Amino acid sequence: MSQDHATQPVVTIGRQYGAGGLSVGRFVAERLGLPFYDRELLALAAKESGLSEAVFERHEEKPAETPFFAQPWAVPYHTAARPLGQQVFFAQFEAIRSLAAKGGCVIVGRCADFVLEGRPNVLRVFLRAPLEARLARIMAREGVDEAAARKRLRAAEKDRAAYYNYFTDRKWGDAATYDLCLNTGLFPSDEAVADLVAAAVRSAFG
Amino acid sequence: MSQDHATQPVVTIGRQYGAGGLSVGRFVAERLGLPFYDRELLALAAKESGLSEAVFERHEEKPAETPFFAQPWAVPYHTAARPLGQQVFFAQFEAIRSLAAKGGCVIVGRCADFVLEGRPNVLRVFLRAPLEARLARIMAREGVDEAAARKRLRAAEKDRAAYYNYFTDRKWGDAATYDLCLNTGLFPSDEAVADLVAAAVRSAFG
Repeated sequence: MSQDHATQPVVTIGRQYGAGGLSVGRFVAERLGLPFYDRELLALAAKESGLSEAVFERHEEKPAETPFFAQPWAVPYHTAARPLGQQVFFAQFEAIRSLAAKGGCVIVGRCADFVLEGRPNVLRVFLRAPLEARLARIMAREGVDEAAARKRLRAAEKDRAAYYNYFTDRKWGDAATYDLCLNTGLFPSDEAVADLVAAAVRSAFG
Repeated sequence: MSQDHATQPVVTIGRQYGAGGLSVGRFVAERLGLPFYDRELLALAAKESGLSEAVFERHEEKPAETPFFAQPWAVPYHTAARPLGQQVFFAQFEAIRSLAAKGGCVIVGRCADFVLEGRPNVLRVFLRAPLEARLARIMAREGVDEAAARKRLRAAEKDRAAYYNYFTDRKWGDAATYDLCLNTGLFPSDEAVADLVAAAVRSAFG
Protein backbone atom coordinates (compact mmCIF):
# COMPACT_ATOMS: atom_id res chain seq x y z
CA MET A 1 0.00 0.00 0.00
CA SER A 2 1.62 3.21 -1.14
CA GLN A 3 -0.53 5.83 0.61
CA ASP A 4 0.68 8.57 2.91
CA HIS A 5 2.06 6.94 6.07
CA ALA A 6 -0.47 8.44 8.47
CA THR A 7 -3.39 7.14 6.36
CA GLN A 8 -2.13 3.64 5.55
CA PRO A 9 -4.64 1.09 6.87
CA VAL A 10 -4.43 -0.11 10.45
CA VAL A 11 -6.23 -3.30 11.50
CA THR A 12 -6.93 -3.72 15.22
CA ILE A 13 -7.95 -7.22 16.32
CA GLY A 14 -9.85 -7.84 19.56
CA ARG A 15 -10.46 -11.53 20.18
CA GLN A 16 -11.85 -14.14 22.52
CA TYR A 17 -9.23 -16.48 24.00
CA GLY A 18 -8.85 -19.45 21.65
CA ALA A 19 -10.57 -17.77 18.68
CA GLY A 20 -7.31 -17.57 16.70
CA GLY A 21 -6.66 -13.82 16.87
CA LEU A 22 -2.88 -14.11 16.86
CA SER A 23 -2.74 -16.52 13.93
CA VAL A 24 -5.35 -14.61 11.88
CA GLY A 25 -3.55 -11.33 12.65
CA ARG A 26 -0.25 -12.65 11.26
CA PHE A 27 -1.95 -13.80 8.04
CA VAL A 28 -3.76 -10.45 7.65
CA ALA A 29 -0.46 -8.57 8.00
CA GLU A 30 1.14 -10.88 5.44
CA ARG A 31 -1.71 -10.40 2.93
CA LEU A 32 -1.65 -6.61 3.26
CA GLY A 33 2.14 -6.28 3.47
CA LEU A 34 1.90 -4.53 6.85
CA PRO A 35 3.96 -5.00 10.05
CA PHE A 36 2.36 -7.09 12.82
CA TYR A 37 2.50 -6.02 16.47
CA ASP A 38 1.71 -8.19 19.44
CA ARG A 39 4.29 -8.88 22.14
CA GLU A 40 6.85 -6.87 20.20
CA LEU A 41 4.69 -3.90 21.04
CA LEU A 42 5.29 -4.52 24.70
CA ALA A 43 9.04 -4.50 24.28
CA LEU A 44 8.87 -1.25 22.36
CA ALA A 45 6.60 0.40 24.93
CA ALA A 46 8.86 -0.78 27.71
CA LYS A 47 11.96 0.64 26.06
CA GLU A 48 10.34 4.04 25.54
CA SER A 49 8.78 4.31 29.00
CA GLY A 50 11.72 3.13 31.06
CA LEU A 51 9.58 0.46 32.82
CA SER A 52 11.15 -2.98 32.97
CA GLU A 53 9.87 -5.70 30.64
CA ALA A 54 9.14 -7.95 33.61
CA VAL A 55 6.63 -5.41 34.92
CA PHE A 56 4.94 -5.32 31.50
CA GLU A 57 4.65 -9.10 31.35
CA ARG A 58 2.98 -9.15 34.72
CA HIS A 59 0.40 -6.46 33.90
CA GLU A 60 -0.21 -7.39 30.31
CA GLU A 61 -3.98 -7.27 29.59
CA LYS A 62 -4.96 -7.66 33.19
CA PRO A 63 -7.18 -5.09 34.87
CA ALA A 64 -5.25 -2.55 36.91
CA GLU A 65 -5.35 -2.78 40.68
CA THR A 66 -7.13 0.55 41.35
CA PRO A 67 -10.37 1.84 39.81
CA PHE A 68 -9.33 3.88 36.79
CA PHE A 69 -11.41 6.96 37.34
CA ALA A 70 -10.49 7.09 41.01
CA GLN A 71 -7.15 8.49 39.80
CA PRO A 72 -7.01 12.25 39.24
CA TRP A 73 -6.36 12.82 35.53
CA ALA A 74 -3.90 15.56 36.37
CA VAL A 75 -1.36 12.96 37.50
CA PRO A 76 1.08 12.42 34.60
CA TYR A 77 0.75 8.87 33.31
CA HIS A 78 4.44 8.08 33.51
CA THR A 79 5.01 8.99 37.13
CA ALA A 80 5.17 6.54 39.98
CA ALA A 81 2.12 8.34 41.45
CA ARG A 82 -0.08 6.14 39.22
CA PRO A 83 -0.55 2.43 39.95
CA LEU A 84 1.78 0.26 37.88
CA GLY A 85 -1.05 -1.24 35.78
CA GLN A 86 -2.05 2.23 34.62
CA GLN A 87 1.53 3.23 33.84
CA VAL A 88 1.84 0.13 31.66
CA PHE A 89 -1.44 0.93 29.90
CA PHE A 90 -0.48 4.52 29.14
CA ALA A 91 2.98 3.54 27.92
CA GLN A 92 1.36 1.03 25.52
CA PHE A 93 -1.16 3.69 24.51
CA GLU A 94 1.70 5.98 23.46
CA ALA A 95 3.53 3.18 21.66
CA ILE A 96 0.41 2.22 19.68
CA ARG A 97 -0.25 5.82 18.65
CA SER A 98 3.35 6.37 17.63
CA LEU A 99 3.41 3.14 15.55
CA ALA A 100 0.11 3.99 13.83
CA ALA A 101 1.37 7.49 12.99
CA LYS A 102 4.43 5.98 11.30
CA GLY A 103 2.35 3.81 8.94
CA GLY A 104 -0.12 0.96 8.52
CA CYS A 105 0.02 -2.11 10.78
CA VAL A 106 -1.93 -4.96 12.37
CA ILE A 107 -2.26 -4.84 16.18
CA VAL A 108 -3.74 -7.65 18.28
CA GLY A 109 -5.44 -6.79 21.61
CA ARG A 110 -4.46 -3.98 23.98
CA CYS A 111 -7.56 -1.79 23.38
CA ALA A 112 -5.90 -0.57 20.16
CA ASP A 113 -9.31 0.19 18.59
CA PHE A 114 -10.06 2.59 21.43
CA VAL A 115 -6.57 4.09 21.55
CA LEU A 116 -6.64 4.90 17.81
CA GLU A 117 -10.04 6.65 17.89
CA GLY A 118 -9.91 9.45 15.32
CA ARG A 119 -7.06 8.03 13.21
CA PRO A 120 -8.28 7.61 9.61
CA ASN A 121 -8.47 4.17 7.94
CA VAL A 122 -8.65 1.93 10.97
CA LEU A 123 -10.62 -1.33 10.62
CA ARG A 124 -11.65 -2.53 14.08
CA VAL A 125 -12.04 -6.32 14.05
CA PHE A 126 -13.36 -8.67 16.75
CA LEU A 127 -12.90 -12.44 16.45
CA ARG A 128 -15.01 -14.93 18.36
CA ALA A 129 -15.78 -18.65 18.09
CA PRO A 130 -18.09 -21.14 19.80
CA LEU A 131 -16.80 -22.49 23.12
CA GLU A 132 -16.15 -25.99 21.70
CA ALA A 133 -14.00 -24.65 18.85
CA ARG A 134 -11.99 -22.52 21.27
CA LEU A 135 -11.43 -25.38 23.71
CA ALA A 136 -10.25 -27.61 20.84
CA ARG A 137 -7.80 -24.93 19.69
CA ILE A 138 -6.38 -24.38 23.18
CA MET A 139 -5.98 -28.12 23.78
CA ALA A 140 -4.11 -28.56 20.48
CA ARG A 141 -2.01 -25.42 20.84
CA GLU A 142 -1.04 -25.74 24.49
CA GLY A 143 -1.06 -29.54 24.81
CA VAL A 144 -3.49 -29.61 27.75
CA ASP A 145 -6.64 -31.62 28.48
CA GLU A 146 -10.14 -30.16 28.30
CA ALA A 147 -10.40 -29.31 32.00
CA ALA A 148 -7.14 -27.31 31.88
CA ALA A 149 -8.17 -25.63 28.62
CA ARG A 150 -11.48 -24.62 30.18
CA LYS A 151 -9.70 -23.15 33.20
CA ARG A 152 -7.22 -21.14 31.10
CA LEU A 153 -10.00 -19.88 28.84
CA ARG A 154 -12.12 -18.70 31.75
CA ALA A 155 -9.22 -16.86 33.41
CA ALA A 156 -7.95 -15.21 30.21
CA GLU A 157 -11.45 -14.23 29.10
CA LYS A 158 -12.23 -12.58 32.42
CA ASP A 159 -8.94 -10.64 32.30
CA ARG A 160 -9.46 -9.44 28.73
CA ALA A 161 -13.01 -8.25 29.26
CA ALA A 162 -12.09 -6.56 32.55
CA TYR A 163 -9.02 -4.91 30.97
CA TYR A 164 -10.99 -3.59 28.00
CA ASN A 165 -14.03 -2.43 29.95
CA TYR A 166 -11.80 -0.82 32.57
CA PHE A 167 -9.60 1.23 30.25
CA THR A 168 -12.19 2.19 27.61
CA ASP A 169 -15.72 3.62 27.56
CA ARG A 170 -16.89 0.58 25.57
CA LYS A 171 -17.99 -3.00 26.09
CA TRP A 172 -15.68 -5.81 25.00
CA GLY A 173 -17.35 -7.95 22.30
CA ASP A 174 -20.22 -5.52 21.68
CA ALA A 175 -20.80 -5.38 17.89
CA ALA A 176 -21.33 -1.60 18.11
CA THR A 177 -17.65 -1.22 19.08
CA TYR A 178 -16.26 -2.88 15.94
CA ASP A 179 -16.37 -2.58 12.14
CA LEU A 180 -16.11 -6.31 11.48
CA CYS A 181 -16.88 -9.23 13.82
CA LEU A 182 -16.35 -12.80 12.69
CA ASN A 183 -17.10 -16.25 14.12
CA THR A 184 -13.80 -17.92 13.21
CA GLY A 185 -15.28 -21.35 14.00
CA LEU A 186 -17.40 -21.17 10.84
CA PHE A 187 -14.54 -20.89 8.37
CA PRO A 188 -12.22 -23.64 7.09
CA SER A 189 -8.95 -22.05 8.31
CA ASP A 190 -7.30 -18.98 9.84
CA GLU A 191 -6.08 -18.14 6.33
CA ALA A 192 -9.70 -18.07 5.11
CA VAL A 193 -10.64 -15.68 7.93
CA ALA A 194 -7.62 -13.49 7.10
CA ASP A 195 -8.73 -13.38 3.46
CA LEU A 196 -12.09 -11.91 4.54
CA VAL A 197 -10.45 -9.34 6.81
CA ALA A 198 -8.02 -8.31 4.05
CA ALA A 199 -10.92 -8.04 1.57
CA ALA A 200 -12.76 -5.76 4.01
CA VAL A 201 -9.67 -3.53 4.37
CA ARG A 202 -9.29 -3.22 0.59
CA SER A 203 -13.00 -2.53 0.14
CA ALA A 204 -13.14 0.11 2.90
CA PHE A 205 -9.86 1.96 2.24
CA GLY A 206 -9.18 1.20 -1.42
CA MET B 1 -25.52 -23.49 -5.63
CA SER B 2 -26.38 -27.08 -6.44
CA GLN B 3 -26.30 -28.68 -2.98
CA ASP B 4 -29.10 -30.64 -1.37
CA HIS B 5 -32.00 -28.25 -0.67
CA ALA B 6 -31.92 -28.55 3.11
CA THR B 7 -28.21 -27.65 3.21
CA GLN B 8 -28.14 -24.79 0.68
CA PRO B 9 -26.84 -21.66 2.42
CA VAL B 10 -29.22 -19.39 4.31
CA VAL B 11 -28.19 -15.84 5.19
CA THR B 12 -30.10 -14.15 8.01
CA ILE B 13 -29.63 -10.38 8.31
CA GLY B 14 -30.32 -8.51 11.54
CA ARG B 15 -29.81 -4.76 11.18
CA GLN B 16 -30.02 -1.39 12.84
CA TYR B 17 -32.61 0.94 11.32
CA GLY B 18 -30.95 2.94 8.54
CA ALA B 19 -27.93 0.62 8.23
CA GLY B 20 -29.02 -0.63 4.79
CA GLY B 21 -30.11 -4.19 5.68
CA LEU B 22 -32.84 -4.40 3.05
CA SER B 23 -30.67 -3.11 0.23
CA VAL B 24 -27.64 -5.22 1.20
CA GLY B 25 -29.91 -8.27 1.57
CA ARG B 26 -31.22 -7.92 -1.98
CA PHE B 27 -27.68 -7.66 -3.38
CA VAL B 28 -26.52 -10.68 -1.36
CA ALA B 29 -29.44 -12.75 -2.72
CA GLU B 30 -28.60 -11.62 -6.26
CA ARG B 31 -24.91 -12.52 -5.90
CA LEU B 32 -25.66 -15.98 -4.49
CA GLY B 33 -28.62 -16.70 -6.76
CA LEU B 34 -30.92 -17.23 -3.76
CA PRO B 35 -34.49 -16.02 -3.13
CA PHE B 36 -34.90 -12.96 -0.89
CA TYR B 37 -37.58 -12.79 1.84
CA ASP B 38 -38.71 -9.70 3.65
CA ARG B 39 -42.31 -8.50 3.49
CA GLU B 40 -43.14 -11.37 1.12
CA LEU B 41 -42.49 -13.61 4.10
CA LEU B 42 -45.30 -11.91 5.97
CA ALA B 43 -47.78 -12.55 3.18
CA LEU B 44 -46.78 -16.19 3.07
CA ALA B 45 -47.02 -16.62 6.83
CA ALA B 46 -50.41 -14.92 6.80
CA LYS B 47 -51.74 -17.21 4.09
CA GLU B 48 -50.63 -20.34 5.91
CA SER B 49 -51.85 -19.29 9.36
CA GLY B 50 -55.23 -17.89 8.41
CA LEU B 51 -54.49 -14.55 10.16
CA SER B 52 -55.29 -11.49 8.08
CA GLU B 53 -52.46 -9.52 6.48
CA ALA B 54 -53.63 -6.36 8.23
CA VAL B 55 -52.98 -7.97 11.62
CA PHE B 56 -49.48 -8.92 10.48
CA GLU B 57 -48.66 -5.41 9.34
CA ARG B 58 -49.70 -4.06 12.70
CA HIS B 59 -47.61 -6.50 14.75
CA GLU B 60 -44.62 -6.68 12.46
CA GLU B 61 -41.41 -6.56 14.54
CA LYS B 62 -43.02 -4.91 17.52
CA PRO B 63 -42.83 -6.49 20.95
CA ALA B 64 -45.95 -8.46 21.87
CA GLU B 65 -48.35 -7.01 24.39
CA THR B 66 -47.94 -9.70 27.09
CA PRO B 67 -44.71 -10.98 28.65
CA PHE B 68 -43.74 -14.00 26.58
CA PHE B 69 -43.01 -16.46 29.34
CA ALA B 70 -46.16 -15.50 31.22
CA GLN B 71 -47.99 -17.64 28.64
CA PRO B 72 -48.21 -21.35 29.37
CA TRP B 73 -46.28 -23.19 26.64
CA ALA B 74 -49.00 -25.79 26.47
CA VAL B 75 -51.27 -23.31 24.67
CA PRO B 76 -51.03 -24.07 20.93
CA TYR B 77 -49.45 -21.13 19.12
CA HIS B 78 -52.19 -20.82 16.54
CA THR B 79 -55.13 -20.56 18.89
CA ALA B 80 -56.84 -17.34 19.90
CA ALA B 81 -55.81 -18.18 23.49
CA ARG B 82 -52.42 -16.55 22.74
CA PRO B 83 -52.08 -12.77 22.36
CA LEU B 84 -52.14 -11.70 18.72
CA GLY B 85 -48.46 -10.59 18.72
CA GLN B 86 -47.41 -14.09 19.71
CA GLN B 87 -49.64 -15.74 17.12
CA VAL B 88 -48.02 -13.57 14.46
CA PHE B 89 -44.53 -14.47 15.72
CA PHE B 90 -45.21 -18.20 15.72
CA ALA B 91 -46.79 -18.11 12.27
CA GLN B 92 -43.67 -16.32 10.94
CA PHE B 93 -41.50 -18.83 12.80
CA GLU B 94 -43.20 -21.69 10.91
CA ALA B 95 -42.98 -19.87 7.59
CA ILE B 96 -39.24 -19.22 8.03
CA ARG B 97 -38.54 -22.85 8.94
CA SER B 98 -40.56 -24.14 6.04
CA LEU B 99 -38.82 -21.80 3.55
CA ALA B 100 -35.35 -22.73 4.86
CA ALA B 101 -36.18 -26.45 4.60
CA LYS B 102 -37.11 -25.98 0.93
CA GLY B 103 -33.72 -24.43 0.03
CA GLY B 104 -31.25 -21.58 0.47
CA CYS B 105 -32.46 -17.99 0.91
CA VAL B 106 -31.72 -14.55 2.37
CA ILE B 107 -34.02 -13.39 5.20
CA VAL B 108 -33.97 -9.88 6.69
CA GLY B 109 -35.06 -9.38 10.31
CA ARG B 110 -37.73 -11.38 12.16
CA CYS B 111 -35.34 -13.22 14.53
CA ALA B 112 -34.56 -15.62 11.65
CA ASP B 113 -31.12 -16.40 13.12
CA PHE B 114 -32.77 -17.65 16.33
CA VAL B 115 -35.60 -19.46 14.55
CA LEU B 116 -33.16 -21.41 12.34
CA GLU B 117 -30.95 -22.61 15.23
CA GLY B 118 -29.68 -26.08 14.30
CA ARG B 119 -30.20 -25.79 10.53
CA PRO B 120 -26.84 -26.40 8.80
CA ASN B 121 -25.15 -23.71 6.68
CA VAL B 122 -26.75 -20.58 8.13
CA LEU B 123 -24.62 -17.40 8.15
CA ARG B 124 -26.01 -15.03 10.78
CA VAL B 125 -25.22 -11.43 9.79
CA PHE B 126 -25.75 -8.19 11.73
CA LEU B 127 -25.40 -4.81 10.00
CA ARG B 128 -24.80 -1.58 11.89
CA ALA B 129 -23.58 1.91 11.04
CA PRO B 130 -22.70 5.10 12.92
CA LEU B 131 -25.68 7.27 13.85
CA GLU B 132 -24.76 10.01 11.33
CA ALA B 133 -24.62 7.55 8.42
CA ARG B 134 -27.97 6.09 9.39
CA LEU B 135 -29.65 9.48 9.73
CA ALA B 136 -28.32 10.49 6.29
CA ARG B 137 -29.71 7.30 4.75
CA ILE B 138 -33.14 7.71 6.34
CA MET B 139 -33.35 11.39 5.25
CA ALA B 140 -32.46 10.48 1.66
CA ARG B 141 -34.67 7.39 1.52
CA GLU B 142 -37.76 8.74 3.22
CA GLY B 143 -37.47 12.41 2.22
CA VAL B 144 -37.63 13.72 5.80
CA ASP B 145 -35.53 16.25 7.75
CA GLU B 146 -33.04 15.28 10.43
CA ALA B 147 -35.42 15.71 13.35
CA ALA B 148 -37.99 13.38 11.76
CA ALA B 149 -35.28 10.88 10.78
CA ARG B 150 -34.00 10.85 14.36
CA LYS B 151 -37.53 10.22 15.68
CA ARG B 152 -38.19 7.34 13.27
CA LEU B 153 -34.83 5.80 14.02
CA ARG B 154 -35.36 5.90 17.76
CA ALA B 155 -38.84 4.33 17.53
CA ALA B 156 -37.84 1.60 15.06
CA GLU B 157 -34.68 0.77 16.97
CA LYS B 158 -36.53 0.39 20.25
CA ASP B 159 -39.11 -1.89 18.61
CA ARG B 160 -36.50 -4.09 16.94
CA ALA B 161 -34.42 -4.59 20.05
CA ALA B 162 -37.50 -5.24 22.20
CA TYR B 163 -38.91 -7.69 19.62
CA TYR B 164 -35.66 -9.63 19.36
CA ASN B 165 -34.88 -9.69 23.07
CA TYR B 166 -38.47 -10.65 23.87
CA PHE B 167 -38.80 -13.59 21.49
CA THR B 168 -35.28 -15.01 21.75
CA ASP B 169 -32.84 -15.91 24.53
CA ARG B 170 -30.26 -13.56 23.00
CA LYS B 171 -29.32 -9.89 22.94
CA TRP B 172 -29.92 -7.92 19.75
CA GLY B 173 -26.64 -6.57 18.36
CA ASP B 174 -24.41 -8.69 20.62
CA ALA B 175 -21.47 -9.95 18.52
CA ALA B 176 -21.73 -13.37 20.23
CA THR B 177 -25.12 -13.89 18.55
CA TYR B 178 -23.83 -13.51 14.98
CA ASP B 179 -21.24 -15.00 12.60
CA LEU B 180 -20.52 -11.75 10.77
CA CYS B 181 -21.14 -8.16 11.93
CA LEU B 182 -20.32 -5.23 9.66
CA ASN B 183 -20.28 -1.46 10.00
CA THR B 184 -21.88 -0.60 6.65
CA GLY B 185 -20.89 3.06 7.06
CA LEU B 186 -17.25 2.15 6.40
CA PHE B 187 -17.74 0.72 2.91
CA PRO B 188 -18.25 2.60 -0.36
CA SER B 189 -21.67 1.07 -1.21
CA ASP B 190 -24.29 -1.52 -0.29
CA GLU B 191 -22.96 -3.61 -3.19
CA ALA B 192 -19.49 -3.61 -1.58
CA VAL B 193 -20.99 -4.81 1.72
CA ALA B 194 -22.94 -7.52 -0.14
CA ASP B 195 -19.71 -8.66 -1.83
CA LEU B 196 -18.15 -9.25 1.62
CA VAL B 197 -21.19 -11.15 2.88
CA ALA B 198 -21.27 -13.31 -0.27
CA ALA B 199 -17.52 -14.00 0.08
CA ALA B 200 -18.10 -15.11 3.70
CA VAL B 201 -20.89 -17.48 2.60
CA ARG B 202 -18.69 -19.03 -0.10
CA SER B 203 -15.76 -19.36 2.30
CA ALA B 204 -17.83 -20.94 5.08
CA PHE B 205 -20.04 -23.29 3.07
CA GLY B 206 -17.99 -23.86 -0.10
